[in-house]
Amino acid sequence: MLTLYFAPGTCALASLIALEESGLSFDTKKVNTRENEQRSEAYLKINPKGRVPALATDRGVLTESTAILAYIAQMAPAAKLAPLDDPFEFARLQAFNGYISSTVHVNHAHRPRGSRWADDEAALESMKAKVPQTMGESFELIEAAMFRGPWVMGDNYTVADPYLFVMTSWLPSDGVDPTRFPRVSEHYARMLERPAVQRALAREKA
Amino acid sequence: MLTLYFAPGTCALASLIALEESGLSFDTKKVNTRENEQRSEAYLKINPKGRVPALATDRGVLTESTAILAYIAQMAPAAKLAPLDDPFEFARLQAFNGYISSTVHVNHAHRPRGSRWADDEAALESMKAKVPQTMGESFELIEAAMFRGPWVMGDNYTVADPYLFVMTSWLPSDGVDPTRFPRVSEHYARMLERPAVQRALAREKA
Repeated sequence: MLTLYFAPGTCALASLIALEESGLSFDTKKVNTRENEQRSEAYLKINPKGRVPALATDRGVLTESTAILAYIAQMAPAAKLAPLDDPFEFARLQAFNGYISSTVHVNHAHRPRGSRWADDEAALESMKAKVPQTMGESFELIEAAMFRGPWVMGDNYTVADPYLFVMTSWLPSDGVDPTRFPRVSEHYARMLERPAVQRALAREKA
Repeated sequence: MLTLYFAPGTCALASLIALEESGLSFDTKKVNTRENEQRSEAYLKINPKGRVPALATDRGVLTESTAILAYIAQMAPAAKLAPLDDPFEFARLQAFNGYISSTVHVNHAHRPRGSRWADDEAALESMKAKVPQTMGESFELIEAAMFRGPWVMGDNYTVADPYLFVMTSWLPSDGVDPTRFPRVSEHYARMLERPAVQRALAREKA
């Protein structure tokens, strides 16, 4: 059995959507980040990093969205969530998701979680002030050079799509107008129509 | 033919070592980051992100260390640089490398490249001041909970090893004493004995 530890409003939504798309049997556990449950002794035994998502499997716990998303795709080949038989296209998918995790998500995190990287209030304010620029530049690159359309990787829906979807959902609160990126905005609307996305959003609210 | 675009002193060294280990035929091109060549019009055509590493292949260019490292492992199965036949162990490897790229490398980058996330000098100084703490905490977690030994993933050398090696090499300049982490320090010494690592370091200096 797979159990996804997630928290609403976090990047764990991408893994939740991927599980909903996969057809795999899975369970979810909500981690109450408002009460800092991700730093509780019990949760640190599941994921010593104190973050979500974490995916508990019969063989152990997996962390990091990029790894979890690829794993879900590999465990559900019939759902065709990744180009598993083509190492080059698989690497392109991993490169897209790697950019999300190491650059886009990091840019975003400087608004709500700047205290990871600096302590004084003035520095946190300075970081927050730059988020509209850094998120805007990342999405300019995605729109112009990385997004193929209609899905991230082209004709086939993959685990890159829910990950991009989550980042796009953060743009307004990051001070970036999503309409600057028409292709990405269409993608966002198209994602909202998918039953798996609707089920995942319902689980977040439950 | 594979061509790796790299710059000395960057995380591209991990991909360079992996290529040296792989037995694959490859070429290298040094990008002069001191003259900001990574932002030149010619290089942006290769990698619009303006970063290294980038791996040019017959089918196109790959970016992101995590994706390039997994691709090298997949293209050279005989070198056994990743547990390719076991999705769970492969995901664990990707999770380790994902943590390096999205957390450890990012922590480090707040010292030399804080201007990615804030503009004023006081904020940059504040970021720099916290790097010994964030890098130290990341390596505490690696030493205690992530590193299996003698290699990152256990008995088998994988593409996680050169990536960890590069991060370890940055500790002294990040204000962290590597001897705090005996297992990681032994790993670093063991890496330096590998002919592939020595060849990669020689290419950096050439």
